[in-house]
Amino acid sequence: MGNLLGASTIHQQLHSRDQTIFSFKSAMTVVPLVSASHTLAARYRSVREATVALCAPLENEDFVVSSMDDVSPTKWHLAHTSWFFETFVLAPYLSSYVARHPRYAFLFNSYYVQAGERHCRAQRGLVTRPTVSEVFEYRRYIDEAVLSLCERIGDDIDHPAWNVLELGLHHEQQHQELLLTDIKHVFWTNPMRPVYSEVPLPVMSAVSQEWQQISEGVYEIGHGGEDFSFDNESPRHKSYVQSSRMATRLITNAEYAQFIADGGYRQPALWLSAGWATVQAEKWNAPLYWEQRDGSWYEFTLCGDGPLSATAPVTHLSYVEADAFARWAGARLPTEAEWEVVARSQPITGHFVDGRAWHPSGAVGPGMQQLFGDVWQWTQSPYVAYPGFRPSAGAIGEYNGKFMCDQWVLRGASCATPRAHARHTYRNFFPSDARWQFTGIRLAADA
Amino acid sequence: MGNLLGASTIHQQLHSRDQTIFSFKSAMTVVPLVSASHTLAARYRSVREATVALCAPLENEDFVVSSMDDVSPTKWHLAHTSWFFETFVLAPYLSSYVARHPRYAFLFNSYYVQAGERHCRAQRGLVTRPTVSEVFEYRRYIDEAVLSLCERIGDDIDHPAWNVLELGLHHEQQHQELLLTDIKHVFWTNPMRPVYSEVPLPVMSAVSQEWQQISEGVYEIGHGGEDFSFDNESPRHKSYVQSSRMATRLITNAEYAQFIADGGYRQPALWLSAGWATVQAEKWNAPLYWEQRDGSWYEFTLCGDGPLSATAPVTHLSYVEADAFARWAGARLPTEAEWEVVARSQPITGHFVDGRAWHPSGAVGPGMQQLFGDVWQWTQSPYVAYPGFRPSAGAIGEYNGKFMCDQWVLRGASCATPRAHARHTYRNFFPSDARWQFTGIRLAADA
Amino acid sequence: MGNLLGASTIHQQLHSRDQTIFSFKSAMTVVPLVSASHTLAARYRSVREATVALCAPLENEDFVVSSMDDVSPTKWHLAHTSWFFETFVLAPYLSSYVARHPRYAFLFNSYYVQAGERHCRAQRGLVTRPTVSEVFEYRRYIDEAVLSLCERIGDDIDHPAWNVLELGLHHEQQHQELLLTDIKHVFWTNPMRPVYSEVPLPVMSAVSQEWQQISEGVYEIGHGGEDFSFDNESPRHKSYVQSSRMATRLITNAEYAQFIADGGYRQPALWLSAGWATVQAEKWNAPLYWEQRDGSWYEFTLCGDGPLSATAPVTHLSYVEADAFARWAGARLPTEAEWEVVARSQPITGHFVDGRAWHPSGAVGPGMQQLFGDVWQWTQSPYVAYPGFRPSAGAIGEYNGKFMCDQWVLRGASCATPRAHARHTYRNFFPSDARWQFTGIRLAADA
Amino acid sequence: MGNLLGASTIHQQLHSRDQTIFSFKSAMTVVPLVSASHTLAARYRSVREATVALCAPLENEDFVVSSMDDVSPTKWHLAHTSWFFETFVLAPYLSSYVARHPRYAFLFNSYYVQAGERHCRAQRGLVTRPTVSEVFEYRRYIDEAVLSLCERIGDDIDHPAWNVLELGLHHEQQHQELLLTDIKHVFWTNPMRPVYSEVPLPVMSAVSQEWQQISEGVYEIGHGGEDFSFDNESPRHKSYVQSSRMATRLITNAEYAQFIADGGYRQPALWLSAGWATVQAEKWNAPLYWEQRDGSWYEFTLCGDGPLSATAPVTHLSYVEADAFARWAGARLPTEAEWEVVARSQPITGHFVDGRAWHPSGAVGPGMQQLFGDVWQWTQSPYVAYPGFRPSAGAIGEYNGKFMCDQWVLRGASCATPRAHARHTYRNFFPSDARWQFTGIRLAADA
Repeated sequence: MGNLLGASTIHQQLHSRDQTIFSFKSAMTVVPLVSASHTLAARYRSVREATVALCAPLENEDFVVSSMDDVSPTKWHLAHTSWFFETFVLAPYLSSYVARHPRYAFLFNSYYVQAGERHCRAQRGLVTRPTVSEVFEYRRYIDEAVLSLCERIGDDIDHPAWNVLELGLHHEQQHQELLLTDIKHVFWTNPMRPVYSEVPLPVMSAVSQEWQQISEGVYEIGHGGEDFSFDNESPRHKSYVQSSRMATRLITNAEYAQFIADGGYRQPALWLSAGWATVQAEKWNAPLYWEQRDGSWYEFTLCGDGPLSATAPVTHLSYVEADAFARWAGARLPTEAEWEVVARSQPITGHFVDGRAWHPSGAVGPGMQQLFGDVWQWTQSPYVAYPGFRPSAGAIGEYNGKFMCDQWVLRGASCATPRAHARHTYRNFFPSDARWQFTGIRLAADA
Repeated sequence: MGNLLGASTIHQQLHSRDQTIFSFKSAMTVVPLVSASHTLAARYRSVREATVALCAPLENEDFVVSSMDDVSPTKWHLAHTSWFFETFVLAPYLSSYVARHPRYAFLFNSYYVQAGERHCRAQRGLVTRPTVSEVFEYRRYIDEAVLSLCERIGDDIDHPAWNVLELGLHHEQQHQELLLTDIKHVFWTNPMRPVYSEVPLPVMSAVSQEWQQISEGVYEIGHGGEDFSFDNESPRHKSYVQSSRMATRLITNAEYAQFIADGGYRQPALWLSAGWATVQAEKWNAPLYWEQRDGSWYEFTLCGDGPLSATAPVTHLSYVEADAFARWAGARLPTEAEWEVVARSQPITGHFVDGRAWHPSGAVGPGMQQLFGDVWQWTQSPYVAYPGFRPSAGAIGEYNGKFMCDQWVLRGASCATPRAHARHTYRNFFPSDARWQFTGIRLAADA
Repeated sequence: MGNLLGASTIHQQLHSRDQTIFSFKSAMTVVPLVSASHTLAARYRSVREATVALCAPLENEDFVVSSMDDVSPTKWHLAHTSWFFETFVLAPYLSSYVARHPRYAFLFNSYYVQAGERHCRAQRGLVTRPTVSEVFEYRRYIDEAVLSLCERIGDDIDHPAWNVLELGLHHEQQHQELLLTDIKHVFWTNPMRPVYSEVPLPVMSAVSQEWQQISEGVYEIGHGGEDFSFDNESPRHKSYVQSSRMATRLITNAEYAQFIADGGYRQPALWLSAGWATVQAEKWNAPLYWEQRDGSWYEFTLCGDGPLSATAPVTHLSYVEADAFARWAGARLPTEAEWEVVARSQPITGHFVDGRAWHPSGAVGPGMQQLFGDVWQWTQSPYVAYPGFRPSAGAIGEYNGKFMCDQWVLRGASCATPRAHARHTYRNFFPSDARWQFTGIRLAADA
Repeated sequence: MGNLLGASTIHQQLHSRDQTIFSFKSAMTVVPLVSASHTLAARYRSVREATVALCAPLENEDFVVSSMDDVSPTKWHLAHTSWFFETFVLAPYLSSYVARHPRYAFLFNSYYVQAGERHCRAQRGLVTRPTVSEVFEYRRYIDEAVLSLCERIGDDIDHPAWNVLELGLHHEQQHQELLLTDIKHVFWTNPMRPVYSEVPLPVMSAVSQEWQQISEGVYEIGHGGEDFSFDNESPRHKSYVQSSRMATRLITNAEYAQFIADGGYRQPALWLSAGWATVQAEKWNAPLYWEQRDGSWYEFTLCGDGPLSATAPVTHLSYVEADAFARWAGARLPTEAEWEVVARSQPITGHFVDGRAWHPSGAVGPGMQQLFGDVWQWTQSPYVAYPGFRPSAGAIGEYNGKFMCDQWVLRGASCATPRAHARHTYRNFFPSDARWQFTGIRLAADA
C-alpha cells in the first residue's frame, strides 16, 4: 500500500496539473483491489485514498460550489465523510479523541437529526472556509485517529467499532460516486465547460438485444449472508414473481434518440401524470447533458463535450423518462425482484470507476450484460421496507429507512460506483425526477 | 323511483332552505339502494340525483370557490361529471347529440389530455360563469340525453356505451365523495365556519383493540369477477404475504391525542424524512381540522366546530402521520395485500354517506370492524400497477394508470363514500401529504 | 325614469333579475348629481346607492371570487366600505350602535393595522359566507345606523363624526372604481368572457395632437381650500417647474399599436431595467386585455370582446410601459407638478362612470382634453409626501401616508371614477407594474 | 508610483499569507493619492492596483461564491471590471486588440443589454472556471493593453477613448466598494465567521447632536463643472427647497438600539406599508449583521464578531428602517436637495477605504460631520431623472438611467468608498429593502 497517492501528496500537486495527472495515473495502476480479507486499516486507507485520488483533476475553486440543490461541493464530500468517522467511530470509541474544530460537526452533518443540529443543505455551496487545504488537513487528522483505533482493534471483529467503521467505508464509497456525479454537474453548469478527464471515450460495438425468461414462483429476495450489506437489503424474504422476461442489455443512446425523434417528449399518453407535468415545467426534451446542435446530438461527459455515442447506454434520465421510454417500446421496467432473480447468478464485472471509465461504455458481448458498472437501472419498484425490516439503532438508523417514501429502487451499479461497493442485493434509490446520477434503462416484459 | 328528489326540484328549492331540507330528508328516507340489478336508466337517475342531493345545504356562493389547489368548486364537480358523460358517452354513441356549449369541454375536462385542451386547474375557483343555475341546467340537459340513450340501449350489455356509462356512474360517485371533502375544506377556510349539517354527531362507545392473525403464504389478490371494477384492481394475481396480524378496529381520536401529547410531532426519529420536512414546513402539530383551545382539542366537522370525540376514529391525516403514529405505537401500517386478505371475508357495512353520517362514527362491537364507511385506511403499499396491468384504451385509460407514481394505496371506504361504491378490491390512492380526505389508521404488525 | 333605484330596492330585486335590470336602466337617467350643498344624509344615500347600482349586471356568483391578488371580490367591496363606516363612524360616535356580527370586523378590515387583526388579503376570494344577500343586509343595517346619526348631526359641521363621514364617502367612491376594475378582471379571467354592459362602445373621431407650453418658475402645488381633500394632497407648497410642454390629448390605441408594431416590446433600450425584467418574465407584448387574432387587435372591455378602437385612449398599461412608449416617442411623461399647473385652469368634464361610459371614449375637440373621465395619467413623479405632509391621527392616518414607497402618481380621473370624486389636486398612486386600472398616457417634453 | 503592489505580486502571495499582509501594509503606506492631475496611465494603474490590494486577505476559495442574489463573487468583480475596459475601451479604440477568451464577454457582462448576451446573474457564484489565477491573468492582459493605449493617447483629452477610460476607472471604484460589502456578506453567511481585517476597530467618543438650518428658496442642484461626474448628476438645475434643518451628525448604534428597545420593530404605525410587510416576512428585528446574545448586541464587521460600538454610526439598514427610525424620532429623512445644499460647502473628509477603516468610525468633533467616509445616508428622495436628464449614447447609457424606478437616493460616501470616488453631487441608489451596503441615517426636520 506504500506508494498509494496520499491526501497530502495530492494536495501539494493541485497547482502542478501535469505532474498530478502523472502521479494519479501511476497510482491507479498499482492500487490492488483491497478486499475484505485485508486488515481493517488497509481497507480504510485504500478507500480514503481513493476519494482523494478522485480530486486530482480539480482546481481549488472547483471544490467550493454547489450547482443545484442535489449537488454538494467536493469540499463538503471530503469533510462529511470524515465527520462520519469522527461522529460515529472516534467520538464513541476512541477516548483520547479531541474534535478537530467545534463547528465542523455543525457544518458537515448531512441529515442525522439524532446527531445534532446541521448546517442548511441549501447553503453548503456558500461556505468558503474551511478552505480546501484545511479540509484535507481535517481528513489527515481523522485518518491518523482512525488508524490508531484500527491498531487497537486489530482482528477483533466483535469490537463495537468494527461494524460502524465498515459502514463508514461503504458510506465513503457512496460519496465517491456522488462526488463524481456532482462535479460533473458543476462542470456542465459552467459555460466554460471544463473537462475532468482528458482520456477519450471508448467506442463500443453494438450488440443485439435478447430476452432472458423468468419463471413464475416464490423466490427468496434480499441479503442473507454474513458479509456487509446495508440494513435496507434485509431481511431475506419470500416474494412471488410472475412469469416474465428481461432484456440482456441496456437501452442505447441510439435507441433513446429514436424515442425522441418519434415525439416521445411530446406525447402525453406515454407519460405518468407527474412525469408529463415535469416535462412541461422543465421543458425536458432529452436526457440531462444532451444538447442538439445543427440537428445532431452532443453529450457532455466527464471527458468534455462530444458527439453522442450511438452504442453507449443512455444515461442521466429520470424514472419518468425511463418509464415513458419503456411504454413507447411496448415493454416495461423490471421489478427489483425480477432484476435480483436474474442478476444473482451473474458475476459482478463492468466499467467501474476504479477502471477510470468515467462513462458508461456500452455492451461487450452475448449473454446477460451490463448489470454492473455502466448505469444504475431504474426498476418499477418503489423504495419501501422489506417485510420485517428493522433499521439499525440510534442515529445510524437514519441511514436508509427514513427515505422510504416516494423514491424508486435502482439496481446494479454505475461506471461511477467503486467496484467493491457493488452487490447483487444493493438497493439504490432516487426520486422519480432525479437525473444527475448515472441512471439508465433495462427493459422487462410480461411473459 | 318516482318521487326521488330530482335535480330540477332541488334547484328550485335553493332559495327556500327550510323546504329544501324537508324534501331532502324525506327523500333520503324513501331512496332505496339502487343495485346492479336495476335498469341502467334507474341506476343513472339514482346516482345523478344523489349528487344533487348533496348540494342541498349549500348557498349559491358556496358552489363557486376553491380553497386550495386540491379542492374543486362544487359547481365544477357538478359540471365535470356531466362533461364526462357528454364526452365519453354522448359524443361517441348518441349521434343526434349537440354539445350544450362550445366552451364547456374546455372548462370541465379535468385531466384527460387525449380529450383535448383543459382549463387550468388552479383557476377553477375563479370562474363565476356558467352560474350555478346554468350548471344545473347543463346537468338536466345531459341527463335527458343520457336517459334517451339508455332507452335505446335497454338491456343490451354488449352495447359499446354500456361500460363507459357504468364507468361514468362510478366516476360520479367518486366526485360525490370529493364534493363533500372539498366543501368541508371550503367551510373550514372561512372564518365564519359555516355548518353543512345540523344533525348532531353521534357519540360511540369505546371498543377494545384486538389483533387478527394472517397466515404466511401465496394469496390471490385483486378483482376477478364480472362485476364492475376499475382497471387498477386487475388482474387478479398471486402475491406472497408474510405472517402478520392486523388490528380489528381503527385508531381513535383519543389514541392519536396521546401520540401528540407524547411529543409525536416533535420527535424526528418517528418520521419519514419527507414527513418530517413537511411537519416543519407546514408547522403541523395535529390532524387537519383539529384546533387546540384552552388545552382541549376541538374538531371541525361537516356538523360544525365541536369538542373532539374520544372514541371516533381519527381522520384527516396524511400517510406520513399515519406512518409516524404506527412507529410510535410499535407497529406498522398494513400492506394492501394484508388488508385485502383480511377484509374479503367481511361484509361491506358501515356509516356511508347514504346514511348521512357525514363523519366517522366509531367502533360498534367485537370482531373485525370499521373496514368500510368510516375512514379510508392508509396502507404501506405505494400505488403501482398490479403485475400484468393493462390500462383501458383511449382517453379512459388515463383514469388510473397515469397516477401510479409517488402515491399510496388506501383501502376500505369512508363515511363520505357512497355505499354502492365500496368494494373489497378497491384501491384508493393519494400522495403522502394529502390530508383533506377522510383518511385514518388501522395498525398491523409482523407476526 | 324618475325614481332613482335605491340601495334597498336593488337588493330586494337581486333574486328577480329581469325586474332588476329594468329598474336599473330606468334609474340611471334620473340620478341628479348630489353635490356638497346637499345634506349629509342625502349625500350619504346617494353615494351608497351608487355602489349598489354598479352591481346590477352581476350574477350572485360574480360577487364571490378574486381573480388575482390585486382584485377583491365585489362582495368584499360592499362589506368593506360598510365596515369603514361601522369602525370609524358608528363605533366611536353612535353610542347605541351594536356591531352587526362579531367576525365582520376581522373579515372586512383591509389594511388598518391600528383597527385590529385582519383576514388575509389573499384569502378574500375564498370566503363564501356571509352570502351576497347577507352582505346587502349588512349594508342596510349600517345605512340605517349612519342615517340616524346623520339626523343627530344635522348641519353641525363641527361634529367630530362629520369629517370621518365625509372621508367614508370618498372612500366608498374609490371602491366604486375598484369594484369596476376588479369585476372587469374577473370577467376577463373567465373563458366564458361575460359581458358587464350591453350598451355598445361609442366610436370617436380622431383629434390632432397639440402641445401646451409651461413656463419655468415657482408654482404653488397641492390642495389649499376648505373643500374635502385627502391628506396626501396637502400642504399646498411651492415647487420649481422647468420650461416644458404637455400634450393636449391622450395617446390613442392606434398610436400605441404603432409602438408595438415597431418592436416596442422587444427593444430593451426603450425600457427601465425593472420594466424590461417584467416584460420578459410576464411575456408582456401589449396592454392588459389586448389580444391579437389573425393579425388584428381585439380588446376586452366591460362591454365584452371587440375590435380595438383606433381613436380611443390606450388604457390598462403599467408605468413602465407608459415610460417606454414615451421614450420611443421621443418625449417623456409629465411630472405631477406640470400636470397640475396645466390642469388647474380646466373644467372637470369627461366620461365618468356616472355617465355609464364604462370605457375611455376618445378625444372630442380642440384644446386641452381628456384630463378627466377617460384614463388616469401616469406621471414620472414617484408618490412621496409633499413637504410638510402630516398624516391624519389614528388609524385613519394609515389611509395614504404609509403607501409612499415605490409607487407612482397618476393624475386626472378615469371613466370608472365617480364624477364627484375627481379633483385637480387628486393624487392617485399605483406600483410601476400595475395594469388593471384604467391607466393611460399623456406625453410631456422639455421645452 | 514604482513600488505600488501590483496585481501579479499580490497573486503570488495568496498562498503565503504572512508575507502578503506585510507587503500589503507597506504598500498601503507608500501609495500616494493619485489625483486628476496625474497621467491617465498613472491613474489607471493606481485604481486597478487598489482593487487587487483589497483581495489580499482572501483565500482562493473566498473569491468564488455568491451568498445571495445581490452579492457577486470577488472573482467576478475582478473580471467584470476588466471586461468593462475590454468592451468599451479596447474593442473600439485599440485596433490590435484580441479578446482574451471568447466566452469571457458572455460571463462578465453585468447588465449591458446592448453589449450582448449575458450569463445569468443568479449563476455567477456557480462558475469555478476561469480560476482565480486565470482571472488575475485576464486582468494583467487587459492592463497591458490599456496601458499601451494610454501611451498612444498621452495628454489628448479629446481622444474618444478618454472619457470611457475615465468612466471605467470610476466604475472600477464602485466595484471596489461592492467587493468589500459583498465579501462581508459572504463571510457573515459562513458559520466559521472568517475575519477580513485583524486590525481592531477604533472606539470613538460620543458627540452631541446639533441642527443646521436651511433657508427656503430656489437652489441650483446637480453637477455643473468640467470634472468627471456620472450622467445622473446632471444637468444642474433649479429646485425649490423648503425651510428645514439637518442633523450635524449620523445616528449612532446606541440611538438605534434605543429604537429597538422601544419596540420599534413591533409597531406597525412607525412603518411604511411595504416596510412592515418586509419586517414581518423577513423577521427583521435589528440591522443586518446585528445579533443579540445574552441580552447584549453584537455586530459582525470586516474585523470579525464583536460587541456593538455605542458611538459608531448605525449601518446596514434599509430605507424602510431608516424611515421608521426617523418617524419614531419625530423627524424625517432629508431630501437629496437639502443634503446637497448643506454638504456642498463642506470638505470631503472621512474614514474612506483608502485609510483602511473597514467600518464606520463615529463622529469626531463639532460642526457638520460624517457627510463622507462613514455611511451612505438614505434620503427621502426616490431616484429619478433630473429635469432635462439625457443618458449617454450607446450601451454606456445603460449605466444609470435605466435604474430610475423604485430605488432611493443615498448621499455622501461610506467607509468602503474610495476617497477619490466621493463627490458632493454623487447620487448613489438602492431599493428600499437593501441592507448589505454601508447605509445609515442622518435626520432632517421641517423648520
